[in-house]
Amino acid sequence: MTARPPFTPLVQSLPASVPFVGPEAQERARGRNFRARLGANENGFGPSPRVKDAIRAAAGDAWKYADPEHHELKGALAQHLGVGTNNIVIDSGIDGLLGLVVRLIVSEGVPVVTSLGAYPTFNYHVAGFGGRLVTVPYVNDKEDIQSLLDAVRRENAPLVYLANPDNPMGTWWEANAINQMIEALPETTLLVLDEAYCETAPASSVPAIDVSRPNVIRMRTFSKAYGLAGMRVGYAIGEEGLINAFDKIRNHFGMNRLAMAAAHAALEDQDYLSGIIEQVAEARERIGRIAADNGLSVLPSATNFVAIDCGRDGAFAMQVMKELIARDVFARKPMSPIQDRCIRISVGPAEELDVFEAELPAALAAASEA
Amino acid sequence: MTARPPFTPLVQSLPASVPFVGPEAQERARGRNFRARLGANENGFGPSPRVKDAIRAAAGDAWKYADPEHHELKGALAQHLGVGTNNIVIDSGIDGLLGLVVRLIVSEGVPVVTSLGAYPTFNYHVAGFGGRLVTVPYVNDKEDIQSLLDAVRRENAPLVYLANPDNPMGTWWEANAINQMIEALPETTLLVLDEAYCETAPASSVPAIDVSRPNVIRMRTFSKAYGLAGMRVGYAIGEEGLINAFDKIRNHFGMNRLAMAAAHAALEDQDYLSGIIEQVAEARERIGRIAADNGLSVLPSATNFVAIDCGRDGAFAMQVMKELIARDVFARKPMSPIQDRCIRISVGPAEELDVFEAELPAALAAASEA
Repeated sequence: MTARPPFTPLVQSLPASVPFVGPEAQERARGRNFRARLGANENGFGPSPRVKDAIRAAAGDAWKYADPEHHELKGALAQHLGVGTNNIVIDSGIDGLLGLVVRLIVSEGVPVVTSLGAYPTFNYHVAGFGGRLVTVPYVNDKEDIQSLLDAVRRENAPLVYLANPDNPMGTWWEANAINQMIEALPETTLLVLDEAYCETAPASSVPAIDVSRPNVIRMRTFSKAYGLAGMRVGYAIGEEGLINAFDKIRNHFGMNRLAMAAAHAALEDQDYLSGIIEQVAEARERIGRIAADNGLSVLPSATNFVAIDCGRDGAFAMQVMKELIARDVFARKPMSPIQDRCIRISVGPAEELDVFEAELPAALAAASEA
Repeated sequence: MTARPPFTPLVQSLPASVPFVGPEAQERARGRNFRARLGANENGFGPSPRVKDAIRAAAGDAWKYADPEHHELKGALAQHLGVGTNNIVIDSGIDGLLGLVVRLIVSEGVPVVTSLGAYPTFNYHVAGFGGRLVTVPYVNDKEDIQSLLDAVRRENAPLVYLANPDNPMGTWWEANAINQMIEALPETTLLVLDEAYCETAPASSVPAIDVSRPNVIRMRTFSKAYGLAGMRVGYAIGEEGLINAFDKIRNHFGMNRLAMAAAHAALEDQDYLSGIIEQVAEARERIGRIAADNGLSVLPSATNFVAIDCGRDGAFAMQVMKELIARDVFARKPMSPIQDRCIRISVGPAEELDVFEAELPAALAAASEA
């Protein structure tokens, strides 16, 4: 046995494998492609034709690094949002931004508050920087603001996560509830408000942007309503001093140049976005009808996916999901108690929902017999 | 004064600004675009037409996340390199991989060895994770293997960096020297062998790949010879246990889907790569002739750039670089003593080298008068 370069004690303590399995890995394991890709909350309606044109037009520039200051896209976002360019930082999706914000705030042993069953990639980053994750349960399938605040105060936690609308349940809080949370938050606690799905949510659920508070950072993405999950462009909005700190640790030349062009074109095509939002709403309704046709109910959703209550326990819902996957429908599900009675179906084009509609009865029947 | 969420002590200790200024920022400051983009060691000859076709063909898939296991590109690389897929990890350029490997090995106060004036982004990551950077001087414009080894042993350092060929000088070691370094390295010290420029280097300078050693990791990129700097695809090759550790901390869904398609197409077009390598060699020779026509000498280069010895001190070379920039030629330069007598000119298409050739005499004259 030879000696090896030593990993840090923290890295040694991390689990060897992580639960990030993509649909492609499942397709390889099954030896067959999915007919409906409805598991990752992607936007199967795809990006605007103008975005695809912008990507194609920029292909010849692929040899140039992107501007490390992201001047053009930040300028367009700042104008769109009514904030300054110094209130925005761009990185490779909200996943990348979550890693950075955790790294800014969390050293080993620092308590971080989130909801049990909320976005797992945030938890992955907290663990990856040695934070101590403190979770509170959902209440009525919603992340519970009061429980989050109580845990923040009890633990004196410098970081708390809330997604509005929520993933994986699709539920949401109205803006006044979020604003009350912000008012009640200790000044020394940073709220990460993950708004990945805000474009498809009711306008009444999105608080006005206020970049005067150093203890709120809002994260948004081009991955969902804008249909650019594969391009990896997310942005965070916050107070200038907080935003500036990202420059200490981010990969300055880390962004893909074509992704920046794509995001800029997507932002400029708000008409297309409006159409997508309508299509998403229609697809949510259709998923609700399909569920009802099978005797199931759905949770109200402000996102591009719908949580279907399978009406029994988590083991049953897991079996339903597996039976859907066996029938070429890529789906995922919540894993934490109570929420785990649901499966999660992303919206998609009619032909993919056709597949889901055709296969759900058999999947339910097979799960009932299992 | 309100209280703020506390950054970690490490983050608080980091410098507020970082020296990553792109050519776009300079263009904005000048109010005028560069006519020759020769400063960032990009590949102005651009990617293969097949790569551009692959990007355009994949534009419609931009709504899908990339496969987090990178199965297809890793498979193609493994076959190309004669290693297993478990010996390869892909991330957003060598910059991204350097951040990850530093995070695997470096906790606060851990000594890390590199050469004074070597790749600054490695140093940025070491500082960002609290490492203690130990530098040794170049000798004869080359990173000095013996000095690196001496420092590793003296400091008991678990991590050492060597670029072969070197950036910013363009110099290189033959494979037998690298292999001797590997043999002499303590088993508990990981060598990061940065081979960003290996495709344009003499074959005799690239050691055979041996993935049996847990203390060597080699990093390569599609940013340089393959002409895809803007797409951000780098890969590291190493022993399986070392490579697996990246899965503990990397952003699993962080890669751009179109970048993966572009890199795959680039790898498959080795004929185009061969043509680029010839064009790079010709451009290096032309830069040498331009320098000679102005009474300057160049360092031998195995890369896609040439270090031109301006014949005087660092202040003079800095002035030459500034005068080139004032004349629309984007250039950079080494900053550490002795090497700082040089400016660094990336290869590029003939029309850009024409601009450089036309402007260098006036830039030298102006610098001499300053």
